[in-house]
Amino acid sequence: MERVKTGIKGFDDMLDGGFLPETANLVEGAPGTGKTTLGMQYIYNGITQFDEPGLILTFEEFPAQYYRDGASFGWDLRALEQAGKLRVLLISPEVSVRDLAQVGGVIERAARDLGARRVLVDSLSHFERIVDDPIELRKLVYGFINGLKREGLTAIITRESDALFGESLSGEGDVAFLADSYTLLRYVEIESAVRKALIVLKLRGSNHAKDIRQFEIAGQGLEVQAKFEGHEGIMSGSPHRMAQSFVEAFVRDRR
Amino acid sequence: MERVKTGIKGFDDMLDGGFLPETANLVEGAPGTGKTTLGMQYIYNGITQFDEPGLILTFEEFPAQYYRDGASFGWDLRALEQAGKLRVLLISPEVSVRDLAQVGGVIERAARDLGARRVLVDSLSHFERIVDDPIELRKLVYGFINGLKREGLTAIITRESDALFGESLSGEGDVAFLADSYTLLRYVEIESAVRKALIVLKLRGSNHAKDIRQFEIAGQGLEVQAKFEGHEGIMSGSPHRMAQSFVEAFVRDRR
Amino acid sequence: MERVKTGIKGFDDMLDGGFLPETANLVEGAPGTGKTTLGMQYIYNGITQFDEPGLILTFEEFPAQYYRDGASFGWDLRALEQAGKLRVLLISPEVSVRDLAQVGGVIERAARDLGARRVLVDSLSHFERIVDDPIELRKLVYGFINGLKREGLTAIITRESDALFGESLSGEGDVAFLADSYTLLRYVEIESAVRKALIVLKLRGSNHAKDIRQFEIAGQGLEVQAKFEGHEGIMSGSPHRMAQSFVEAFVRDRR
Amino acid sequence: MERVKTGIKGFDDMLDGGFLPETANLVEGAPGTGKTTLGMQYIYNGITQFDEPGLILTFEEFPAQYYRDGASFGWDLRALEQAGKLRVLLISPEVSVRDLAQVGGVIERAARDLGARRVLVDSLSHFERIVDDPIELRKLVYGFINGLKREGLTAIITRESDALFGESLSGEGDVAFLADSYTLLRYVEIESAVRKALIVLKLRGSNHAKDIRQFEIAGQGLEVQAKFEGHEGIMSGSPHRMAQSFVEAFVRDRR
Amino acid sequence: MERVKTGIKGFDDMLDGGFLPETANLVEGAPGTGKTTLGMQYIYNGITQFDEPGLILTFEEFPAQYYRDGASFGWDLRALEQAGKLRVLLISPEVSVRDLAQVGGVIERAARDLGARRVLVDSLSHFERIVDDPIELRKLVYGFINGLKREGLTAIITRESDALFGESLSGEGDVAFLADSYTLLRYVEIESAVRKALIVLKLRGSNHAKDIRQFEIAGQGLEVQAKFEGHEGIMSGSPHRMAQSFVEAFVRDRR
Amino acid sequence: MERVKTGIKGFDDMLDGGFLPETANLVEGAPGTGKTTLGMQYIYNGITQFDEPGLILTFEEFPAQYYRDGASFGWDLRALEQAGKLRVLLISPEVSVRDLAQVGGVIERAARDLGARRVLVDSLSHFERIVDDPIELRKLVYGFINGLKREGLTAIITRESDALFGESLSGEGDVAFLADSYTLLRYVEIESAVRKALIVLKLRGSNHAKDIRQFEIAGQGLEVQAKFEGHEGIMSGSPHRMAQSFVEAFVRDRR
Repeated sequence: MERVKTGIKGFDDMLDGGFLPETANLVEGAPGTGKTTLGMQYIYNGITQFDEPGLILTFEEFPAQYYRDGASFGWDLRALEQAGKLRVLLISPEVSVRDLAQVGGVIERAARDLGARRVLVDSLSHFERIVDDPIELRKLVYGFINGLKREGLTAIITRESDALFGESLSGEGDVAFLADSYTLLRYVEIESAVRKALIVLKLRGSNHAKDIRQFEIAGQGLEVQAKFEGHEGIMSGSPHRMAQSFVEAFVRDRR
Repeated sequence: MERVKTGIKGFDDMLDGGFLPETANLVEGAPGTGKTTLGMQYIYNGITQFDEPGLILTFEEFPAQYYRDGASFGWDLRALEQAGKLRVLLISPEVSVRDLAQVGGVIERAARDLGARRVLVDSLSHFERIVDDPIELRKLVYGFINGLKREGLTAIITRESDALFGESLSGEGDVAFLADSYTLLRYVEIESAVRKALIVLKLRGSNHAKDIRQFEIAGQGLEVQAKFEGHEGIMSGSPHRMAQSFVEAFVRDRR
Repeated sequence: MERVKTGIKGFDDMLDGGFLPETANLVEGAPGTGKTTLGMQYIYNGITQFDEPGLILTFEEFPAQYYRDGASFGWDLRALEQAGKLRVLLISPEVSVRDLAQVGGVIERAARDLGARRVLVDSLSHFERIVDDPIELRKLVYGFINGLKREGLTAIITRESDALFGESLSGEGDVAFLADSYTLLRYVEIESAVRKALIVLKLRGSNHAKDIRQFEIAGQGLEVQAKFEGHEGIMSGSPHRMAQSFVEAFVRDRR
Repeated sequence: MERVKTGIKGFDDMLDGGFLPETANLVEGAPGTGKTTLGMQYIYNGITQFDEPGLILTFEEFPAQYYRDGASFGWDLRALEQAGKLRVLLISPEVSVRDLAQVGGVIERAARDLGARRVLVDSLSHFERIVDDPIELRKLVYGFINGLKREGLTAIITRESDALFGESLSGEGDVAFLADSYTLLRYVEIESAVRKALIVLKLRGSNHAKDIRQFEIAGQGLEVQAKFEGHEGIMSGSPHRMAQSFVEAFVRDRR
Repeated sequence: MERVKTGIKGFDDMLDGGFLPETANLVEGAPGTGKTTLGMQYIYNGITQFDEPGLILTFEEFPAQYYRDGASFGWDLRALEQAGKLRVLLISPEVSVRDLAQVGGVIERAARDLGARRVLVDSLSHFERIVDDPIELRKLVYGFINGLKREGLTAIITRESDALFGESLSGEGDVAFLADSYTLLRYVEIESAVRKALIVLKLRGSNHAKDIRQFEIAGQGLEVQAKFEGHEGIMSGSPHRMAQSFVEAFVRDRR
Repeated sequence: MERVKTGIKGFDDMLDGGFLPETANLVEGAPGTGKTTLGMQYIYNGITQFDEPGLILTFEEFPAQYYRDGASFGWDLRALEQAGKLRVLLISPEVSVRDLAQVGGVIERAARDLGARRVLVDSLSHFERIVDDPIELRKLVYGFINGLKREGLTAIITRESDALFGESLSGEGDVAFLADSYTLLRYVEIESAVRKALIVLKLRGSNHAKDIRQFEIAGQGLEVQAKFEGHEGIMSGSPHRMAQSFVEAFVRDRR
């Protein structure tokens, strides 16, 4: 099956090749876990490795912030924008929803001008904050997602997590039920340091890795690494070494 | 006793043969646990293995989404619909309740046209979001369930769980008290990976398995596998290996 | 002292013989734990073993549901009703309260016609949902309970628990303070299976067993079995094996 | 210093002899822990062992309930009332507050007629439910307590705990700060049974035992027994055996 | 640097000599932990050991309660008041704030008449209850504290903790940020008894002990003792013995 | 890359040299953890070690409080202010936002007069308290931060944490997502004492240390020390020694 590769080391393998085309892919994390970096890297790699132009919809930060953040990884987003491969749009969530619902809106035009195949929506939390009623929110997000799919776009949609460590409660009517895939970025305390974990919980229409993997944000962006070993309770953010490894250490010594 | 088989490997055994006829069977899980897949498989198997036509009531996703999701498991739902064995109805929860309460409504007619024996209601959470008052909700769900039973249907009703790991609080007046059976799908962290567990908590009028079973969603849909072994606290989503297995490992070595 | 026997294997022993006459006995549990089964069995045994006619007050389910549920245990409630030994009354909580407060109400007449000695009230949670103010609720329940006692009835009153595992918070002004006895039915995860526990917390005017007992719902209804052994934290629903049993296993091996 | 003895085995020792005269002594517990029994026993012993007449103020249950509960321990409260040594007053919390604030109210007259030295107030929770504002509640309870002290009474005041196991949150402005002593009755799970613990947290103007003691309610009422041994986390309701006892068991075996 | 000694055994050492002059020192604890006793002892020692007259501002209890409580430790507060060294003022929080803000108010006059150097404010929680808005509360407390400092007073300000064991949530805008020092009194369960711990979290402008110390309230008032040893999780109120001590016990035996 | 050094021992190393220029750096902690001290030290070192004048914006405390606090570390802030290197501005959060948004406001003028390169904003929590709506708050903080950046300032922004130990919930729309770096100061209980930990969670555009480091506030201000060793669960505030260290101690002894 055709896949939309992220080009992120290790992540495409977890996704059994990449995202499925024309899907909405949720990426959730606490401040500093790297949601936006992952999204930018997906857009940047799309353009530079797979020749798929991309769109960044931002509801809060100015484009300059993305240029600056990208630059720190050696990604010259401004140049890509000037080359007609990328467009960073600062828009309000309300406007973006109405815009996508109409023919010939700003987003549609930008997508068509670029021949965009990918989009980063940064972040879904801005939708969650403008609508209190969970039914309204679901409808709005569903409409927005379908609008993106209609344009032939494969989206990464970021979401802010309330809790620094462990699970943040999503409340009634979680929009994660609507997403085609659901990836969590988490802080994990291991040996008196704060590491990062990436988990793919859901990938509609495909197999995916179930491992809880370590990842780092280095000079080139995200790198997904080996799974954690010998720990229990990683998803809580505060794992402990497993009794099993204790036993093994013990037993090894006795022989 | 006559049973309505799901045809899902391992699940019918847990149910002591299958659901009881004309019952409402609640299946609850977090995003990505496979509630809808389980429900579609129940409908698909009903038609193809047991010659029981079926209905899918969806309150949010378009029929095309079910066709697509089904296709990834090799289930050609569109063909079944064209063959008059299946009907996927997108309807609002409010309308569906009124519709079922009257003679000759859309659902009744669809069920009778098909000669439907099964129905997937996806999802109960949409009812929970339109009614705040728990008494009203209970009455509404009770009426809805009885309407389905009057049509001779055996229903799987999905419900969204708020928490990714562990228990989600159902709040006052949980409608699970009304269901004839209650099955939980849960994420469980085991050895640095996220596995899935299936538990049958309740099956009115019948014995059922009490084990906490692993399951996977593979190319053919859900497969219920062996029970978990050697772990405590599975229902919390974050189990730990049992002291018992520690002792056994220890003792084995000493002999 | 005279006792009202439930006839439920093991349960009467825990109650030091049975309930005290003309008392209100609270039985609380999550969906599927068997509250209603326990209550029906109390009524059924009352009629068939102790020749004490009984009443079932239901605030939600139709009598047919009780007939069906009873039938799965071989209890022919419909026949008992026809024989004038049982009455299943579907009534609203509001009406039942007013009814009991007046002379010659429906409940009073039904009780007198049958010569009823027992009543199952299914469930108290319906009262809790119609009254927000805890003072009002306490008065209402107190009045209702006293009305039943005035009729010479010994009642089992079920209550729905919000939490599947562990304690559900009862909120301010818990009516459990008013009950003459208080029995909890709980799910407990043991060795990767979901077992059930029964605990008698309170029995006014009598000694009672303090053990946390396992029970099963089998072909004949509830059977209370031996206490759990070697586990800590059972009331949380997620116990762990005790260090003590670990020590014993260890020590046994060394000798 | 003069002490007001409860006559309850073991409890007076914990209180370094008994309550201090003209104090308000809070006793808190979940349903079935024995708060009211402790209070009745204090009144009954006061009359029969120390010749101190007593008053019972009840805000909910009829006097007959106290007679019945007392009878199950062999305490003939009705006879004591007839002998002019006891008075059981059913009163509303609102009325009781106004009554105590005026000269020659019902409570004052009852206390003086009897020559009462002791009072059981059952329960403070009824005050907590009629007043939402914590400042108002504190003033009201403070006034009520001082009214009792003015009459020369030494009071046991019961309070209902919301949580069955572990701590119940008292909310803002806890009136426990006003009490002269504070005793907790708690359920504790030990070796698959539900035991009861009694703890004296506070005793103004006196030393007191800090132990967490087991107690039972037997044929004669409460009996405070030895402290728990070898467990940690008793106050949580779900203790575990201490590593220490594990070490000792281990070490004993090796010698 | 000049220090305001509390004269409380062990506490001055923890404070590196005592409080700093003209500071506001917060002391927080659950009912019965000894906040008011600590505060009275600070005032009493100030007068009798350091010749520094003091003021007690009480927002709820009558002066007589302080006399009585003091008397149980052998502190004759009434005599000190008569000697012009102490003043116990019952005042409302609202009035106290307005009073301090004006020239020649009651508090100012009392402080000047006495030549007061110390003040006990019992308790801050009364402020917290009269103001809902956290900004208002912070301003009010800030103004109140500065008023006391303007009078040259060094204050102990008590605060009621909501939770009996472990941390009580302070809510938004905690006034502890304004205090010059912050001392916690906590209940801790150790070996089946309830002990007390004292921790100095903060002491602006000075070093302080970081140990978690045991303390007792004995015949002479508070005595701060040695730190706890060999336990983890003391601040939770429910510590457990450390694995380390387990290892040591184990290792000791093997040699 | 150019870095703005804090001059705080160990902290600059964690930041891979220092903050990035013209960024907003969030520092969060409970009362007494040293947020304001860290911020003052950043300003003080900036002036005295790096010749970068600085501004302190305070929303609550008077400048005198900063002079006093600084003096206890030997930092003569008043002298620096008189030398035209520092300005301590007491301002309301509302005014500061409007002021920064206009040309020639107070903050702009102060920054330009000084030639300020650094600013301490103490604290962000005052913003959080004046705005309830999370969208408004995010906009306001975003505008405020950008205003500071426009003036060429590199900011430390403190934030009050609600919880003494462990994580405080930030609620919906956490402004930490807007910060360029995010540093946590935490209390940690280790061996019956309360230590302090510093963690850099996020540093946009740069690598940073992931260790959880101990720090102390000594005579010279903050000193960041070695990482914690041999403990799990440090971020919870209540760590326990690792099984690993247990194994090592055990194994060492057997050889």
